[in-house]
Order: sequence, then structure tokens, then C-alpha cells
Amino acid sequence: MGEENPYRFDVQPLLIVISGPAGAGKDALIQRTKERGQPFHFVVTATDRPQRPGEVHGRDYYFVTREEFAAMLASDELLEHAVVYGQNKGIPKQQVREALASGQNSIMRIDVQGAATIHRLVPDAVLIFLTASSEEELERRLISRGGDSEEQIRRRIVMAREEMKRLPEFDYVVVNHDCALDQAVDDVLAIIRAEQRRVEPRVVRI
Amino acid sequence: MGEENPYRFDVQPLLIVISGPAGAGKDALIQRTKERGQPFHFVVTATDRPQRPGEVHGRDYYFVTREEFAAMLASDELLEHAVVYGQNKGIPKQQVREALASGQNSIMRIDVQGAATIHRLVPDAVLIFLTASSEEELERRLISRGGDSEEQIRRRIVMAREEMKRLPEFDYVVVNHDCALDQAVDDVLAIIRAEQRRVEPRVVRI
Repeated sequence: MGEENPYRFDVQPLLIVISGPAGAGKDALIQRTKERGQPFHFVVTATDRPQRPGEVHGRDYYFVTREEFAAMLASDELLEHAVVYGQNKGIPKQQVREALASGQNSIMRIDVQGAATIHRLVPDAVLIFLTASSEEELERRLISRGGDSEEQIRRRIVMAREEMKRLPEFDYVVVNHDCALDQAVDDVLAIIRAEQRRVEPRVVRI
Repeated sequence: MGEENPYRFDVQPLLIVISGPAGAGKDALIQRTKERGQPFHFVVTATDRPQRPGEVHGRDYYFVTREEFAAMLASDELLEHAVVYGQNKGIPKQQVREALASGQNSIMRIDVQGAATIHRLVPDAVLIFLTASSEEELERRLISRGGDSEEQIRRRIVMAREEMKRLPEFDYVVVNHDCALDQAVDDVLAIIRAEQRRVEPRVVRI
């Protein structure tokens, strides 16, 4: 024949970014997706903060020294990084590259600010904004998860309002309704499935 | 507050167009989707050909007289129409309008030529190209469904090659693998679910 096979539809691996305000349920959504046995690479953040009891290196975080972190930063080996309470966090590019090279979809959670950075660096990443269904629900969740003072919760809600304004920078919005986490997971899985059926596929380069 | 509720995410009803070469399995896919109880409006074609035994008016077709068909055409009440063996077929706009107005997704099947017309008239329609996984499979299906001569099958396969070239005009491609019709249905349902989570929704106007 000599011609290209017109029936060859390659499926490209994706980089899926789960973002949204604190209290929207990003961690719970990623955790549930994991539990449902999806063959994704779940991106692990590198940090130079000390390992806490119960945390597993390579699962919860990549625990590195301050020097190692600085070296990754210096060699441009971090997709995104942030300083949180004087401790560094960042996404090593290499693991995402490796996952994509093996044909695996990579999924990661990041705050709204960080998602904007990913969008700039990897325009073909799929950006999903996860949100509670109302401000009241967001507040209830922030209170029930504990750990924040009343003042901190107030600040998080004001910040969530600001973050909602950045919704137009995202591709998809998924509402995490109370008691319906699996529906939000189904939404994310549908988005991934649909994206991999696009006639013009996203081609992620890192 | 006075401000718009930022947590209001309206879901817009969609017009989903299933197209692709003869033998790809458009009818079977629509039929299976129906059987799986999806709350969609399944678009019914109007025709002026005689009703055959077993066919139900309003389910299989809207059977109209030649004069009624001409009147719909004259008043621009058809989304798309074609003449097949001297008999007219067309999609009445009104039923799609009504389904959309009631918030229902509308799903329809149409040949590749017709899909291009829909795309021009309704740029926000979701265009899905259904295909067999290989030319051999397409041929097997055309033979096994019967009714076509060897010469007709040959012509259909050549036509399918031409139709494949129009793939770039479509949004999504779904491969209907042999013995895996439900996977193709799942693909279509995922596409619809994902499309309804887009930050910039499609707004179908007819």
C-alpha cells in the first residue's frame, strides 16, 4: 500500500492536574481514584521537610535534603515548586517524563496558583478545577477536617472566592458534592477517557 | 451579596452527532445506548417514503407525505436533508429545539457528508466519528450484515477510505472494536459527561 494506515489511532498519555480551593477535596479525590485501581501514575511531590511517622518515602513524598532540593531547583528539574512555612515542595519532572514515556497517564494535585504555572509550562496538560457545591459546604468541610482556627477558615474562604475567579484558566470544572465523591471521580475518569478520544490529541512535553 | 453565585455551574444540553462510514456500527451504537436507558432524546428522521411493516411512526421515522416534506424544506425546518433513491430524509429542527429546551441531550446518527453540514449549521454540536478498527473488520461487517452485493461492498470500502480523510473535521474518534460495542458506548457517554464539565460550555443554537 505504501500509505499510512488510516485506522491507526494512537492514544497519547496525559498529564491531569487536579486543582481547586482548600477544602474542595483534592486529596480525597486522588485517594479514591487510587483505591479504584486506576492504572495512572500518581505524581509524588519532593520536599525537604522532615519525614513524619507513618509517611512513606516515594508514596507520600520524596524526602530529600535541603541540598538535594536546591540542586533539583538549580538544574531546572522541578515542574513547579513552592515554599510552605519555610520548607520546599516541588514536582520532579523526571518522574512525570518517565510515566509519560511508558504510556501512563499522570495525575497530580496542586493549588490554584501552581496550576497556572503548570498551564504555562505544559500547555497540553488537562486542567481540572475541583470545587465544593457552595460556600456553606466548603466552610463545613474546612471546619470538620479540623486543624484550622476560625480565623484561618475565614481566610481560606476568602481565598477560595479569589481562586474561583481563576476558573476560566481551567479546562474542566468538577463539583465535589457532599457525600458523592465517587461521582466526582467518575467525572474525572470520563474527562480522561474523552480527552483520549480527541481527534486532535494533546501531546504533553516536559 | 448582590454578586452572582460563583458556585453555580449550569450544565448545557448538547447535540451529539454520531457519524462514520457505513459498517462502522452507528445504528447498533445508538440502539445499545437506548437500551442502556440513557435519558437522551434520540433524534428521529422525517421521511416521505412509505412506512414498512413493523416500523413505528415517531420511533423509527416520522412518516410524512411528499407535500409535508416539501413544506418543511421550504420553511427551513430541516437541520439537514438528503435524497436517497428518490426518497427524502431530513432532521426536523423543531424536535431538537424542544429536547434542548427541556434540558435533554439530543443524539443523532448521520453520514459523514451530513455531519459536515451539521457542523456548519450548529458549530457547537459534538461531532463523533465512529470507525471500525481496520479495513478488514469493516469488510467483515459489511458482508455479515448482508443486503449488499460484492460490488456494493467494494464501493462502500473505497468510500470509507475517503470518509476517513474527513476525520479532522470531527471532535472525537471512537473505535468500535469487534465484540466490544459497550466500550464504544462507554466512550460516547464519557465524551458527553466530559463535555458537560467544560469550563467554557458549548451552547447549541438551532
